[in-house]
Amino acid sequence: MSKPELAKLGYVALVTPDLDKSLWFFKEVIGLEETANQNGVHYLRAYGDFGHHTLTLEKGESGHAKYVGWRTKKREDVQLFKEALELKGVDVETVPAGTTKGIGEAIRFQLPSGHSFELYYDMEKPAVEAHRRSVLKNQPYKAWAKGISPRRFDHVNIHSTINVQETYDFLMEQLGFNMREYVVDDDGNTIAGWMSVTPLVHDVAFIAKPTLPTPARLHHLSYWSDDSQDILRAADILKENGLQFIGPGKHGVSQALYLYVMDPGSGCRVELFTGGYLIFEPDWEPVKWTLDERALSNTYWGDTVQDKELNNITIEAK
Amino acid sequence: MSKPELAKLGYVALVTPDLDKSLWFFKEVIGLEETANQNGVHYLRAYGDFGHHTLTLEKGESGHAKYVGWRTKKREDVQLFKEALELKGVDVETVPAGTTKGIGEAIRFQLPSGHSFELYYDMEKPAVEAHRRSVLKNQPYKAWAKGISPRRFDHVNIHSTINVQETYDFLMEQLGFNMREYVVDDDGNTIAGWMSVTPLVHDVAFIAKPTLPTPARLHHLSYWSDDSQDILRAADILKENGLQFIGPGKHGVSQALYLYVMDPGSGCRVELFTGGYLIFEPDWEPVKWTLDERALSNTYWGDTVQDKELNNITIEAK
Amino acid sequence: MSKPELAKLGYVALVTPDLDKSLWFFKEVIGLEETANQNGVHYLRAYGDFGHHTLTLEKGESGHAKYVGWRTKKREDVQLFKEALELKGVDVETVPAGTTKGIGEAIRFQLPSGHSFELYYDMEKPAVEAHRRSVLKNQPYKAWAKGISPRRFDHVNIHSTINVQETYDFLMEQLGFNMREYVVDDDGNTIAGWMSVTPLVHDVAFIAKPTLPTPARLHHLSYWSDDSQDILRAADILKENGLQFIGPGKHGVSQALYLYVMDPGSGCRVELFTGGYLIFEPDWEPVKWTLDERALSNTYWGDTVQDKELNNITIEAK
Amino acid sequence: MSKPELAKLGYVALVTPDLDKSLWFFKEVIGLEETANQNGVHYLRAYGDFGHHTLTLEKGESGHAKYVGWRTKKREDVQLFKEALELKGVDVETVPAGTTKGIGEAIRFQLPSGHSFELYYDMEKPAVEAHRRSVLKNQPYKAWAKGISPRRFDHVNIHSTINVQETYDFLMEQLGFNMREYVVDDDGNTIAGWMSVTPLVHDVAFIAKPTLPTPARLHHLSYWSDDSQDILRAADILKENGLQFIGPGKHGVSQALYLYVMDPGSGCRVELFTGGYLIFEPDWEPVKWTLDERALSNTYWGDTVQDKELNNITIEAK
Repeated sequence: MSKPELAKLGYVALVTPDLDKSLWFFKEVIGLEETANQNGVHYLRAYGDFGHHTLTLEKGESGHAKYVGWRTKKREDVQLFKEALELKGVDVETVPAGTTKGIGEAIRFQLPSGHSFELYYDMEKPAVEAHRRSVLKNQPYKAWAKGISPRRFDHVNIHSTINVQETYDFLMEQLGFNMREYVVDDDGNTIAGWMSVTPLVHDVAFIAKPTLPTPARLHHLSYWSDDSQDILRAADILKENGLQFIGPGKHGVSQALYLYVMDPGSGCRVELFTGGYLIFEPDWEPVKWTLDERALSNTYWGDTVQDKELNNITIEAK
Repeated sequence: MSKPELAKLGYVALVTPDLDKSLWFFKEVIGLEETANQNGVHYLRAYGDFGHHTLTLEKGESGHAKYVGWRTKKREDVQLFKEALELKGVDVETVPAGTTKGIGEAIRFQLPSGHSFELYYDMEKPAVEAHRRSVLKNQPYKAWAKGISPRRFDHVNIHSTINVQETYDFLMEQLGFNMREYVVDDDGNTIAGWMSVTPLVHDVAFIAKPTLPTPARLHHLSYWSDDSQDILRAADILKENGLQFIGPGKHGVSQALYLYVMDPGSGCRVELFTGGYLIFEPDWEPVKWTLDERALSNTYWGDTVQDKELNNITIEAK
Repeated sequence: MSKPELAKLGYVALVTPDLDKSLWFFKEVIGLEETANQNGVHYLRAYGDFGHHTLTLEKGESGHAKYVGWRTKKREDVQLFKEALELKGVDVETVPAGTTKGIGEAIRFQLPSGHSFELYYDMEKPAVEAHRRSVLKNQPYKAWAKGISPRRFDHVNIHSTINVQETYDFLMEQLGFNMREYVVDDDGNTIAGWMSVTPLVHDVAFIAKPTLPTPARLHHLSYWSDDSQDILRAADILKENGLQFIGPGKHGVSQALYLYVMDPGSGCRVELFTGGYLIFEPDWEPVKWTLDERALSNTYWGDTVQDKELNNITIEAK
Repeated sequence: MSKPELAKLGYVALVTPDLDKSLWFFKEVIGLEETANQNGVHYLRAYGDFGHHTLTLEKGESGHAKYVGWRTKKREDVQLFKEALELKGVDVETVPAGTTKGIGEAIRFQLPSGHSFELYYDMEKPAVEAHRRSVLKNQPYKAWAKGISPRRFDHVNIHSTINVQETYDFLMEQLGFNMREYVVDDDGNTIAGWMSVTPLVHDVAFIAKPTLPTPARLHHLSYWSDDSQDILRAADILKENGLQFIGPGKHGVSQALYLYVMDPGSGCRVELFTGGYLIFEPDWEPVKWTLDERALSNTYWGDTVQDKELNNITIEAK
């Protein structure tokens, strides 16, 4: 039987102490569409996201990410991942179909870093009401209906204080991620890694941050827009809505053109980005950056994320 | 042993009766970089192409494409494809390493449509001279050095008069392509299909065109730019260089923002494009367009490719 | 006493048989802001327009333009223009302040072509409600609040069957317009002229069209956006709203990047455009285009306005 | 006789200790075209500049600006300005036609701040060689021939330690500039002013900077590009050429989207910018910003010019 594989990043389950503010931020400012609102959970996605949701929002005492969801390549991969993980001594919880609206049977477990991941195969592709539907048969919603209107969910960036090397190994060996770019410290240890199961440079970035208040943190989640100009327009929109942000700037790593802004409800940082490159080469040699090259790896040009107070804020990832 | 797989589109081997004009077009106007010039063959690639070349140019009596090259996922896949194809009765030629500069051992064969494909695994990744090298470690050349300067090779579009359904089947069953979008005629036959082994909407499009002068034709090859604005700037550059083109326009199928221009040396059409979307869903249901929807599938907006003389020009793909 | 001068184009007074549809088009799709709604007249402007309005909309039996309003450089210029025009035998009507909301005392008269112009100096600059106001002190409204969201009103394009040369002379000699670019027929007669009192290539274009159903027609009014990408985004928005349009394309004359779309209520064509160039040279020599050069003067590249049914539609300008 | 008027900013006469480096910077990186090279002076302009030059470059011991040239509206204005200035006790030097290639008879004098201005009317409009000429009759050169390729010269920004209020008065009363936006200190004194004779927000900005090493300094000269995307592409090009720069960012004042980079030969800062707005209103009320609003007036968003070492560099303006 072949090794189970991940197909793609699915969604982040976000908890916010100020649901109204978070809904305003994600629906009116970012411009996500709502596919469902059930049992206090709001299901959101971008105009070009094909699945049921790429973000869930619900009220809670503190702003945090409950888990990050990933879709497998095949239905049987969910069970195969469960077996393989349990063989490695990982606690795996099975979540019945429908626990999260639109999702089939899933499993949940923690990375060595303490982050919770969910794996599932089945996800509904809800029909869109006629007045919101794109005239294009290959696009769920009309673009540009409201706010920034990014095309699709792209990646997550997670930080941890613990088990850093174990987590890189776990992501690559247990979950099949490919290392695409990484930063090493002066002892040769990887302290930041951009990894993917797709040709994107990263579906997930995992960063060692020893000074965080709790081990497992979500640094940001990211939505992708088609054009650089969209990011500049996003900056106008964020500014006019009274939101502080970092950027625009272009990372050396991944070549992403970015803005970083915080959901004022949950404290979750959101990256609005475009650019970057795709990796189709099957023998990709991970791009290695040293600490000496940190200035360039962080910032090719523009408003830098380094040494900005806003950059050090992360939310707990339980 | 697992089924062999294609990783990505590699290159087109183009023959031109006017090599100087083709070199001017591809190097000065399009802005491709030359990695080698050996035995009369010029090896070209875009600033962000990682392999040795994505286009070869050589002089010949008529403008035509010798074959389209594809990279496999693993080294052993080349041999595995050979065996599987021969089992199906396909004539497969083995090409020794180095026959094409930068390429390892390869196989060549014809699709039922008459188009020649080459499969290989090994491809050199040549170092770039210091003055042309990007300061970025994840990008081979400086962008914007000359002409339009697209980022990377993207796809080919091939036409045929014969064995249309057999060719779709061959591409999917023998080579592992996924159908992403397709057009059916009034009898339900697929007459145009956009297929990929990657999350791109298409690495190859295959179109039935019963009126062509020879069975196997190359309609166009395509290079990808990051931004819509790059395509408008490309239009300025083409116009100022005295070249006729179609576009800008946006296809319904694939959502590509395009320009189509002909290499004045070879007669080969080149698409300059951006936009589109990525397919990460493992259970993608191919988007079906009927002839009634042809106007939208062809043109979401802009200068249409339909009913333009320039659109009917294809070169032979031997 | 010095010669009176025009400062700028002010607004178009548009009549529509379907006010609801026109309001939907101009407010929701184009994204204009409403400053007042009084006595059945809706006063609209773009986010960066500084005066009270740049378009008025009211209900009437047929779609037509009542007149085009222009602001003078000084208050006394209104009276000086009146005197100078009457000296030339032109009938001039005086319109009391407040007849049009936000406008001081004005005069109205007809060009030899039959088009009505209004001249005024005083125009209110209404304050913007806090929630719609830009955080910028130099910009009235937040940009990107709704629809396409162009920055400002730009120009009008008017056509006539009669008194063509007299009208060019009138515009230049009586009203002070500078000819910037023009097209001559084979007899050397000017048949199209782009004229301005500002450094824009044109505040008004006047075109001879012998085949029109009534002498004085409005071909289009135009709103300006900052970036080329805004025009492509506008194309998406128009398409998703079920509106037909011409473009994107780039004129040779004026270098404008354009879309042309018709208000479905009034039948008035609207140009969405960017690009072009500014003329600061005091000794500008008008750029002359012959009929032989008509292809380039019309279309530098892109979806052409020529030979399109939509292009021949004009509304009456009474 | 009517008051003399300025039509537009003409050019900056720049002296550089490293002529080769400055020529590389302005011709290869910025992409200016050279119209003449005579007596050690290189005459440069952007692809869309209509006059003979917008920058002169010559070798000298230190990097500095000799003067800033301005074109008058009429030929007789040069003499009228001379007479009016001398009446005010200003020393005015007459410069014979041809002293600067392409320029007719001119006058030169100093502002109270110590900056030298040159006024002239006649300026040649040299024909462009066929292979560099645009196919457009309204554009001198092909765009995008080399480097960043901005469209046209836009403005200068000058700083002084002395006679600040006198200089504002001089610019407005003697030279006819309109104040468009300004910053006041806590005592109500204007310490920064953006002024124009055209509808641009500024042809010249004049800033009080008490700490400068010499009284009259040139902070930057500026070239204008059509699109925001052009500024991002410019950032790529500057970075790949090893040049440090500030931006991209968007000023509150003037709404300019900017990059600031230093000519490595002369030390002269160059702004690459787009965006902004045009002022056609004849009764424009200057936009007033207080020190409390300095953060917004400086930076609407993006990489800020404040507190950057690079921002404090100015060259002497003799």
